[in-house]
Amino acid sequence: MDKDAGRVENLKPNYKLWLEQDGQYVFGLGAYNILKSIHEAGTITEGAKALSMSYRYAWGVIKKIEITLGVKLLETYKGGNVGGGGARVTEHGLKLMKMFDGARTAVDKAFRKSP
Amino acid sequence: MDKDAGRVENLKPNYKLWLEQDGQYVFGLGAYNILKSIHEAGTITEGAKALSMSYRYAWGVIKKIEITLGVKLLETYKGGNVGGGGARVTEHGLKLMKMFDGARTAVDKAFRKSP
Repeated sequence: MDKDAGRVENLKPNYKLWLEQDGQYVFGLGAYNILKSIHEAGTITEGAKALSMSYRYAWGVIKKIEITLGVKLLETYKGGNVGGGGARVTEHGLKLMKMFDGARTAVDKAFRKSP
Repeated sequence: MDKDAGRVENLKPNYKLWLEQDGQYVFGLGAYNILKSIHEAGTITEGAKALSMSYRYAWGVIKKIEITLGVKLLETYKGGNVGGGGARVTEHGLKLMKMFDGARTAVDKAFRKSP
């Protein structure tokens, strides 16, 4: 049974990361990806679509966090000539994205360094 | 709604960490704590008891990993004069504990450094 002990060495660390408040989960990879996609697409509809999510689902995820934190993460605006308007990630939203991405980068870097 | 935006800064990163093989979860905090407790107590019964677990549960967690990896993590031995015998964490088990703890330390260190 001890022969292919090499397998222990083949194990790799993995992790799930989130931001929390008073020990309560607030912001994780799902919300990060939604904000990023809306940030890139410029509208909630297109941002959700790029992740194969419904507008309703994507917006629901963000809305829940807005309520928890008491700040807006997205703001929508009416369009001009081109018709449509869109959605912008607010400064708070950008800060959350940066915190999450910073923590993720720090962990990935730590794993590359550790044997 | 934007008034107590300070809350965004109050968020803290947290994580769950595990060791995996070909993308499959193998070894996490639960198993780590069980091995550590048995290592310290010297018997499966006492190690499990210290974690308020049944012998059956603790041993089941470890047995499952042994089967997945094809190596023994615990070895039991018969007692001498004092009566009883006990359990030892094998070299493979100690290696797993070290890998898990090393990864955990690396992540904690990364979080202390990152703003």
